[in-house]
Amino acid sequence: MQLVWMIPVAGIAAVLFAAWLAWDVLRRDTGTDAMREIADMIFEGAMAFLQRQYRTIAIMAALTAVAIFLIVGGVSEGVKAIVSTDEGIGFGDIVVARWEEATLTAIAFLVGALASGIAGFVGMYISVRANVRTAAAAQHSLKEAITVSLRGGAVSGFLVVALSLIGVSSIFAVYSRLLGNPAEIAPFLIVGFGFGASFVALFAQLGGGIYTKAADMGADLVGKIEAGIPEDDPRNAAVIADLVGDNVGDCAGRGADLFESMSAENIGAMILGVAIFAVTDDIEWIMFPLVLRSFGIFATMAGLLSVPWFASREPKDPMQPLNGGYFVVSLLSVAGLFICTKVMMGDAWHWFFLCGLVGIGTGIVFVYITQYYTSGSWRPVRDIAEASKTGPATNVVIGTAVGLETTAATAISIGLALVLSFWLGSNAEIAGLDSSFTTGVFGTAVATMGMLMSAAYILAMDTFGPITDNAGGITEMSGAPEGARHITDALDTVGNTTKALTKGYAVASAGLAAFLLFSAYLDKVKERLGLPLTEELPIDLANVDVFVGALLGVMLVFLFSSLAIRAVGRAAATIIEEVREQFRNDPGIMAGTSRPNYHRAVDITARAALREMVLPGILAVGTPVTVGLIFRFTRNTYYFGLEDSGGWLAVAGLLMVGTIGGIILATFFNNGGGAWDNAKKFIEAGNLTDETGAVLGKGSEPHAAAVVGDTVGDPFKDTAGPSLHVLVKLLSTITLVLAPLFIASP
Amino acid sequence: MQLVWMIPVAGIAAVLFAAWLAWDVLRRDTGTDAMREIADMIFEGAMAFLQRQYRTIAIMAALTAVAIFLIVGGVSEGVKAIVSTDEGIGFGDIVVARWEEATLTAIAFLVGALASGIAGFVGMYISVRANVRTAAAAQHSLKEAITVSLRGGAVSGFLVVALSLIGVSSIFAVYSRLLGNPAEIAPFLIVGFGFGASFVALFAQLGGGIYTKAADMGADLVGKIEAGIPEDDPRNAAVIADLVGDNVGDCAGRGADLFESMSAENIGAMILGVAIFAVTDDIEWIMFPLVLRSFGIFATMAGLLSVPWFASREPKDPMQPLNGGYFVVSLLSVAGLFICTKVMMGDAWHWFFLCGLVGIGTGIVFVYITQYYTSGSWRPVRDIAEASKTGPATNVVIGTAVGLETTAATAISIGLALVLSFWLGSNAEIAGLDSSFTTGVFGTAVATMGMLMSAAYILAMDTFGPITDNAGGITEMSGAPEGARHITDALDTVGNTTKALTKGYAVASAGLAAFLLFSAYLDKVKERLGLPLTEELPIDLANVDVFVGALLGVMLVFLFSSLAIRAVGRAAATIIEEVREQFRNDPGIMAGTSRPNYHRAVDITARAALREMVLPGILAVGTPVTVGLIFRFTRNTYYFGLEDSGGWLAVAGLLMVGTIGGIILATFFNNGGGAWDNAKKFIEAGNLTDETGAVLGKGSEPHAAAVVGDTVGDPFKDTAGPSLHVLVKLLSTITLVLAPLFIASP
Repeated sequence: MQLVWMIPVAGIAAVLFAAWLAWDVLRRDTGTDAMREIADMIFEGAMAFLQRQYRTIAIMAALTAVAIFLIVGGVSEGVKAIVSTDEGIGFGDIVVARWEEATLTAIAFLVGALASGIAGFVGMYISVRANVRTAAAAQHSLKEAITVSLRGGAVSGFLVVALSLIGVSSIFAVYSRLLGNPAEIAPFLIVGFGFGASFVALFAQLGGGIYTKAADMGADLVGKIEAGIPEDDPRNAAVIADLVGDNVGDCAGRGADLFESMSAENIGAMILGVAIFAVTDDIEWIMFPLVLRSFGIFATMAGLLSVPWFASREPKDPMQPLNGGYFVVSLLSVAGLFICTKVMMGDAWHWFFLCGLVGIGTGIVFVYITQYYTSGSWRPVRDIAEASKTGPATNVVIGTAVGLETTAATAISIGLALVLSFWLGSNAEIAGLDSSFTTGVFGTAVATMGMLMSAAYILAMDTFGPITDNAGGITEMSGAPEGARHITDALDTVGNTTKALTKGYAVASAGLAAFLLFSAYLDKVKERLGLPLTEELPIDLANVDVFVGALLGVMLVFLFSSLAIRAVGRAAATIIEEVREQFRNDPGIMAGTSRPNYHRAVDITARAALREMVLPGILAVGTPVTVGLIFRFTRNTYYFGLEDSGGWLAVAGLLMVGTIGGIILATFFNNGGGAWDNAKKFIEAGNLTDETGAVLGKGSEPHAAAVVGDTVGDPFKDTAGPSLHVLVKLLSTITLVLAPLFIASP
Repeated sequence: MQLVWMIPVAGIAAVLFAAWLAWDVLRRDTGTDAMREIADMIFEGAMAFLQRQYRTIAIMAALTAVAIFLIVGGVSEGVKAIVSTDEGIGFGDIVVARWEEATLTAIAFLVGALASGIAGFVGMYISVRANVRTAAAAQHSLKEAITVSLRGGAVSGFLVVALSLIGVSSIFAVYSRLLGNPAEIAPFLIVGFGFGASFVALFAQLGGGIYTKAADMGADLVGKIEAGIPEDDPRNAAVIADLVGDNVGDCAGRGADLFESMSAENIGAMILGVAIFAVTDDIEWIMFPLVLRSFGIFATMAGLLSVPWFASREPKDPMQPLNGGYFVVSLLSVAGLFICTKVMMGDAWHWFFLCGLVGIGTGIVFVYITQYYTSGSWRPVRDIAEASKTGPATNVVIGTAVGLETTAATAISIGLALVLSFWLGSNAEIAGLDSSFTTGVFGTAVATMGMLMSAAYILAMDTFGPITDNAGGITEMSGAPEGARHITDALDTVGNTTKALTKGYAVASAGLAAFLLFSAYLDKVKERLGLPLTEELPIDLANVDVFVGALLGVMLVFLFSSLAIRAVGRAAATIIEEVREQFRNDPGIMAGTSRPNYHRAVDITARAALREMVLPGILAVGTPVTVGLIFRFTRNTYYFGLEDSGGWLAVAGLLMVGTIGGIILATFFNNGGGAWDNAKKFIEAGNLTDETGAVLGKGSEPHAAAVVGDTVGDPFKDTAGPSLHVLVKLLSTITLVLAPLFIASP
């Protein structure tokens, strides 16, 4: 049990650190009255949306918990003991009866959902308090503005990581120690936690993503295009909804996304550790992911505190101090990884240390890939800007080509990381374990854990995005001086980059984690089928059930994206109607003599977004279940000595290839959207010139074309893309929990 | 050998029928002098492009043939005899030495490439002769215009089918009878034919697709937007290039695509028949695909000849007679299928008859799916038109959502057809064969063959598209009377639908065929590994090599699309420059007093398109080879009792999941593009109104927005989408030929 004491220590330290950060942010100057007034409206709108959203999610989660209880109780046989026999590591007698398993799984689901909700709510509470303080700080200096906004973001980051760590470890402790179950079966009992987390994450990301882009598109279309007023103009009734949207999408949505990643991947890795525990009897193999996470928390604290130091050297590019902090986190993560593997992993530790290095390296690589594809200094964005000269059509065509192209670097990096970490892991020899497959998969799990050590820092940078975006809006609307605007503009550009980075990071973690989560699903299937844990159960692509499941998996991610994108369009139409009506009913708004009803615009957007999130959400949850049930009841394939294997086989195909399709499609959406956005910014910054050398800037024809591309990219990068990350992880957790449903009774 | 005599009879009949159709078209009225002059320019441009293109392709094909010769000779062990033992159907001694195999494969490759080239060239020759005759016929009646254009298209359709049938059957006859090889190993010797066909198809479709859309975008952007002159205006230097482009993309490109589909799928089905032949000794199991194709030819003849009868009833919608003919083909195909299966397939014939019905039904289903998604009468196109009211961005966003949505119906239909035909096939009991897997896969092959029975008719409808499109252009440019324009406009709309149908049909055939082509690849791998043909060789998705191969497969189709789309953009930029220069250098062009240099525009477009097709082409051919080699030499995975299986395993994952990704992505591109196109047409036809009921037609803001969407969709639907069909089949044929390269020497 070496180093296991680190888990509660790090969890409590993270909460205390977050509390200190929150206190530090909240005690700061809140600027002028005008600023405070706007900030209060954003705060109210955000809180109103979150309350409404969590109420909807709570009802759906409660219904789902009941469904889980009934399904698991109805179809499972109960949880079997893990025994090590001559044939390998297999399953013995039932130690947890089916209805007890059902109860524990449903409770774990609700706890996971609740923890995710709390993390999102508190993080967002601070975020919408930090925006005005950043705006106020921007009136003094860049350094101060960076510090406030990053600390505000870090509250969210630390809370998410801490709640995931505390949540998973406490439920594990309760389900094993307190209830007296063997430690090695507890990971199977807590899978509901991961499902609860991804369930909330899906709806939080969908609802938030639809809200933010519907408000953004609505505000832009009705303001800039129809009424001819600039962005963030106070005469536009949708402008507060737009600022609220930045928070609910990027802060609450992405927070829930990474909360879910960490929880699900932790539990998956713990399940993989069970097989090694069964032969070594070292509980370290199960607890390792949680301990490594704990070290990551301390590394992140140090990295965050180093940012003001980097910023005090007055860098030209505000991205530099953030990158500096990230490198501190990465270096300290390597040190933590070294200690953890050396202490916990016995003789073969060095192989797993190298696996972890692969993971940390992959995180760094993705930071660079995203910057190359979405930042203005490189070819891709320049190409799109150049194409804007021939109008919106060529802008969109070239932007699409860039987005499609970005999938190459993503797929190759993830592929390389998987092959390398699997190979490194499979070299590890563990006495008593003759399966190099098991240690190989465990190697990919260590890589995933290594990469996620910096999650809190990445999340802090992500939430930095909406805070600085809001700070810019508040500065603009409150008529603050030129110098402050200059600072918030610079921060806003950095915020765009950090938001894109987080998405790349989320995609990479989903790709790396894919393997360990499939393996956990297959372990669950093996339990049900009574096969040894160490036996390979091939998911044969040349089997028609697997192939059709795979086809439907890729189809699912396309159809889901379609619904998500269309939802944005529909919700935006509602907002446009509302703003138009306000302009019509009160000519004083346009004249600037009366104030538009921001509150009603916020409210209508919230209701539209929540209505629109239901259909794609149901599709995501319903498809794997439907496919599994249809194949289970219509097919009786004879497969590798197993009768009636249609259901779980088709679901395995859907899960694995759906994940591949989801990762690739999300990369297209995220990077394509980011590149369009920055191509517009590139033109606005005056970097595009015609043959004669004249600048084609704001207001020019190419700029109008680039605005079209940016608007097209908005629902791609902020609704469909991020929702896809969550979808692929939801597929893993839902199939893990409901696996027995897809297998005919023996 | 019952019914095998049908093959030469049908082949010769098809050629004679094509010759009669060609004679019938060529003897018709060629209209006014003005028409002839324009038609001659199109003819010259098209022929010049084809010559140049085929020269480039010929050089690359020659080099590839040498590479195949060296690779197969260098790494293969030679072709082994098929023997039926107690353990199943396996491989015996080597009967064709490796360098003989290499020679025969390289020759087959060249013959396949040549046959594909001839089919494309002759079909296109007639197509660019039929356009002016259709324009002339449109001055008389709709019925006559339909007859001419459809017969012109049918020349291409029949030649493609006939050359595939004659090509595959003759090379099979030569390689078995003449060279004295056993009939059951001949299918393995002729796989080069399929590779040759898909090699030419890839470059023909890429080159043609880039040409057509570069010319289209170039002409539109510089004409409509910059110069403010209408489409098909003779003052635009790119207008002839645009008309040439319709032919090289839709006629030559799609012809090569379907030539390749039929050839590769025929050969794949013959390979699957080998296992059944080995136990039954009935050569029918190998010849069946060719015989069924022969029946399809006669069914198609009858269907084509029935179209004038349907047209003579003066239908309101010119699509009706075409649909009528298609139903005649389908009904007669069912009859042909009944005869073939009953006579050739022994006691289990009824199961395979049902498989064939599934295939024919799938073809019909796809006709309806495509019409729903791309025709103006239904929700999807109306939604896009409606979204155009809020500008180009919402048009593009909703169009993207529609395109993504269409993948659902496609994936579900293909999945259902695969599961059904596999299940039906696996019920067939064949004495001596204890593998229901083999008959299951053979069932999917029969379904594919059933579907492809109507290929000639579908191709005739497809080539109908560019002929009527050209007829419209000639009518417009020659200043023909209003009535004729009305007829060509109606035909043009139908042509858009038939072009979309063909793409849906090509996607469906690629999906259905996927299974049989993988199985052929696995049979080839089993030969090399010395495993029995009837043994299942799982391609395990949970294996890291397969998974990473799969990830790279999906990445490949995205990256390939990126290159194809970008190629269009770059080639279009070249044309825009040229037209601008002509306007600048000779102000008489704009005034209408002097004629632009059409020839130079055609020439520049051709050179740009051919230059741009090389990179995506190399990516397509190079990726599977590179992945296979990297995995072969860096990995030594122990897999199901086999050592060193990295290479072929990763390639299998790439092939199978790349195919899934390609089918889905192509569907998105094809249907999205088609819907955008018809949304524009929907608005142009005056079907969109504002709240007050006023028509928002040509020249309105929503129309401008819809033009943007249409332009975005152009490279999607005519370059990336169709090239992806070819790519997925090329993956199958290249891996089939080069399989030994990916397997370490035993």
